[in-house]
Amino acid sequence: MPTVTPGAAVQPSTDARLRQSSSAPGAMNRSEFEEALEAWSHAIGTEYVKADPRTRDHYGRTTGVEARRPLAVLYPESTEQVREVLRIASAQGIAVYPISRGKNWGYGDAAPVRENQVVLDLKRMNRIIEVNTQFCYAVIEPGVTQEQLYKYLKVNKTGLWMDSSGAGLDASIVGNILDRGFGHTRYGDHCLTTCGMQVVLAGGEVLNTGMGHYPGARAHRTYRYGTGPFLDGIFTQSNFGVVTQVGVWLMPEPEAFSAFFLSAGEESLPDLVDRLAPLRLQGILQSTIHVGNDLRVLSGRMRYPWDRAGGRAPLPRELRAALCAEGAIGAWNVAGAIYGSRETVAATRKLLKRTLSKYRVTFLNDRTLALAGRVQRFLSRFGLANGLGARLESVKPVYGLLKGIPTDEPLHGAQWRVRGPVNPDSADPLDCNSGLMWVAPVLSASGGEATRLVLLIEPIYEKHGFDALVTFTMITERAMICVTNVAFDRRLPDEVARARACYEELTNRLAGEGYVSYRTGPAGMSKLDLSSSVFWDVSARIKQALDPKGIISPGRYQPNAA
Amino acid sequence: MPTVTPGAAVQPSTDARLRQSSSAPGAMNRSEFEEALEAWSHAIGTEYVKADPRTRDHYGRTTGVEARRPLAVLYPESTEQVREVLRIASAQGIAVYPISRGKNWGYGDAAPVRENQVVLDLKRMNRIIEVNTQFCYAVIEPGVTQEQLYKYLKVNKTGLWMDSSGAGLDASIVGNILDRGFGHTRYGDHCLTTCGMQVVLAGGEVLNTGMGHYPGARAHRTYRYGTGPFLDGIFTQSNFGVVTQVGVWLMPEPEAFSAFFLSAGEESLPDLVDRLAPLRLQGILQSTIHVGNDLRVLSGRMRYPWDRAGGRAPLPRELRAALCAEGAIGAWNVAGAIYGSRETVAATRKLLKRTLSKYRVTFLNDRTLALAGRVQRFLSRFGLANGLGARLESVKPVYGLLKGIPTDEPLHGAQWRVRGPVNPDSADPLDCNSGLMWVAPVLSASGGEATRLVLLIEPIYEKHGFDALVTFTMITERAMICVTNVAFDRRLPDEVARARACYEELTNRLAGEGYVSYRTGPAGMSKLDLSSSVFWDVSARIKQALDPKGIISPGRYQPNAA
Repeated sequence: MPTVTPGAAVQPSTDARLRQSSSAPGAMNRSEFEEALEAWSHAIGTEYVKADPRTRDHYGRTTGVEARRPLAVLYPESTEQVREVLRIASAQGIAVYPISRGKNWGYGDAAPVRENQVVLDLKRMNRIIEVNTQFCYAVIEPGVTQEQLYKYLKVNKTGLWMDSSGAGLDASIVGNILDRGFGHTRYGDHCLTTCGMQVVLAGGEVLNTGMGHYPGARAHRTYRYGTGPFLDGIFTQSNFGVVTQVGVWLMPEPEAFSAFFLSAGEESLPDLVDRLAPLRLQGILQSTIHVGNDLRVLSGRMRYPWDRAGGRAPLPRELRAALCAEGAIGAWNVAGAIYGSRETVAATRKLLKRTLSKYRVTFLNDRTLALAGRVQRFLSRFGLANGLGARLESVKPVYGLLKGIPTDEPLHGAQWRVRGPVNPDSADPLDCNSGLMWVAPVLSASGGEATRLVLLIEPIYEKHGFDALVTFTMITERAMICVTNVAFDRRLPDEVARARACYEELTNRLAGEGYVSYRTGPAGMSKLDLSSSVFWDVSARIKQALDPKGIISPGRYQPNAA
Repeated sequence: MPTVTPGAAVQPSTDARLRQSSSAPGAMNRSEFEEALEAWSHAIGTEYVKADPRTRDHYGRTTGVEARRPLAVLYPESTEQVREVLRIASAQGIAVYPISRGKNWGYGDAAPVRENQVVLDLKRMNRIIEVNTQFCYAVIEPGVTQEQLYKYLKVNKTGLWMDSSGAGLDASIVGNILDRGFGHTRYGDHCLTTCGMQVVLAGGEVLNTGMGHYPGARAHRTYRYGTGPFLDGIFTQSNFGVVTQVGVWLMPEPEAFSAFFLSAGEESLPDLVDRLAPLRLQGILQSTIHVGNDLRVLSGRMRYPWDRAGGRAPLPRELRAALCAEGAIGAWNVAGAIYGSRETVAATRKLLKRTLSKYRVTFLNDRTLALAGRVQRFLSRFGLANGLGARLESVKPVYGLLKGIPTDEPLHGAQWRVRGPVNPDSADPLDCNSGLMWVAPVLSASGGEATRLVLLIEPIYEKHGFDALVTFTMITERAMICVTNVAFDRRLPDEVARARACYEELTNRLAGEGYVSYRTGPAGMSKLDLSSSVFWDVSARIKQALDPKGIISPGRYQPNAA
């Protein structure tokens, strides 16, 4: 098993900031910091305040090209303890960097955006506070993982479905919401399905948004806006407070469900998007729909075939074609789902078939999936299954995601370019030397835009020796997010350097063309302010109003922070 | 025609605040105010700065029980002029109260919430800046009315549908969004269908939210969140800035459409809600669904029958039953619609029929509506139409609203208790002596909650001599808004006094039971802070950050303002 490689070790000799961060506590006055550690120990227990090098290294790891090693890590277990921790941080002027579970892979992981910060790991706050089956919601703390909520809903036979992002079993649901992540179902736009936040502000005040501040408000978890300004949005992609509880809407298990899949050729992307977009716009298809390229699908099933490629990268054209043929993978591969009653699902399936009549659409539900499994097992006895088994296996994780079932499967994609033996003990990209930096611009849902974006990014990836792993997600009725990532082996300095250059070029080029990222990591924060902008000034004024000493996550979605 | 009765005239002798407001400019230093008027005249033109008593009276009118007469009224015509106006207001420390069209009937109308404010009437800013038929959106200024956008979309054969609130032809779309109003279609939750705001702040800065601040952002009007904190929500139900442009999503005209209506008995309310709510929760019914009581429907068709009631009020039980029988009105009346393809609409209709099999559901589309009209005309020749004509007429405005077609029809309901001749020249409640104060608590979408609320409010209305006009709107997948209103004749001091008492009791009682209002008027602003609340403190801190001198609409959704 490979040993842990802290992010700080990537380029120890060239990165001044990293050098600085390994000599804790840096700019901080030593005695103030020690006073704070003592006060924190008193407040939350000595065993939950860790400043040892091993812990700091662990939290300073990254799948990116550089990371900030935190000064210490705190593990509060309750909102009350978070308040206390923040009061102490405020008093001593020490910055804290809250994380939910630290699984923000490819967007900064668990590491602070800037130097001299103390990580506030909220993983002990993992209570499922309420699940309501009549109005279909849960109230959860930041430490609740996707797997935890999924299992709770299943074991307790709640009849409720959640939405899962591709971030795996151990990822936090709240963390993903606050980063405005997305998933695969009708509730795929995570930011849209929250109802009522509890937020601890820098001074220790506890804010309840929506109707939560009204005693006994009966629609607290069913109506988001409350009365007066609707504040929830300002606590997403920001550093204005520490969110300690969120109401999350869940779906009642539908009477009927049908996943749909199709694979198509290279030229089909614009046509597929232009056929599917109107169905989204009309509210007929309600799930987020994913259109992944062949490399995206391949990366989920295997690692880069260095041998067959004769050591060359990116993937040579003929080999790429051969691998697609072997795996029955199209140049573009669509996955989505239909939810409703028996009648409405059947009707939507019919419409979808008509709309996509020039493609072969496969519809799957639990019954047909089980049937296909039986057929495959039968045929394989006679050697006739012809890759059906592999196709079924490869479809299963996505099929599950379309029903909100979390899986670690997509994480394997992060290992695409990692050489050598696989880590059998962990799917965590940080444990596998996976280099992973997301570049995820937003575009309007049109075939022309999709093609334009592909033509823009593919040559950049190629120039730097990387493969363009691409998924277009139809996230709303009008917009798509193009999720691509620089996949590299973090142990190879040359590849790391090229990854950095590739990320820089992609980010700059896309921004220049008006393709703004929906989300970004530490390397992207400073690029958010493309010109002197009132938006970021206003943002800074709100920050100043809520956190005057700037102790919460300075630099996070704060491009102009000093 | 009745003459205009300014709100200030309602209780001239008893309301000290009103007395104060009629002696302009009150607490203001006279010469500073005159300097400001001069500067404003210079900035936007003398003819667009009005401080004459007639104009001030006009804007001081209200359908409620008291209103603040503004010091003056300004009519800027552009964002640039709004900036200039605000800079002058900031410099002189004079409060301005922006209105879009001033049709916020029953929630404060055009009048400021507090004394000593200058109305900023944005009606000249009525440009439809962009309409995009591919991605289905419009960019509009605050002065754009429902009728104006509707006609534009129709005349230009855009194939796009908007959502209309019940506020009538002349009401502003932006104004309704910023008050978080709602309508009748799949896009009924207006706050959810905005994309990108332009906001002028107190200091004259122009903020573009979402992606609007990025030069050339290609998904500016198709993806709301942008990158970094999502700010749009804080400009709804607040006084943080003057919104001068909003991107508004529109619906592509669906391939198929079917309205549905049903009428049912008094005991049916909980059953209806419990049958419809799951279809909302499953995303099968996507429109806001309205469930109105008999009085709500009656008030749309007639005024209070004083003669038949023998002068008694509220409406005697037997007379109420007789009127319902004559008009074929149920105790509860449902209106909603289905949008989609031919297949999906047919499937949903089938499901709805099954779900509501114990009721008689009428489905209507353009074809069946035209057919019914022909049948009615034919039958009526033989005296056999039996009220079919009246029923068709009464259904048409609601049918239109379900397709997003604005109408003045719902405004007539405000005249329910007004005595004497009808004003033939105006549907504006302010021109008709209509007393109108909304009380609109939010509840979770369950039959039990609906029943509980009705049992709570009906006795209060009755006690004060008013009729409980009630509509439950299933606004989201989980919540309903119960829209009720105190309807009275503003010329009768006794009725006004009772209206005030009724409003007070309703508001206090509902809040005490945890039924928080989704929106409120001037009389309700001070009641928003039920206990010392971090929420309103945070709100005040953001206000302070964005408008340090407090010049924009002091008191509006600001319960603790000095």
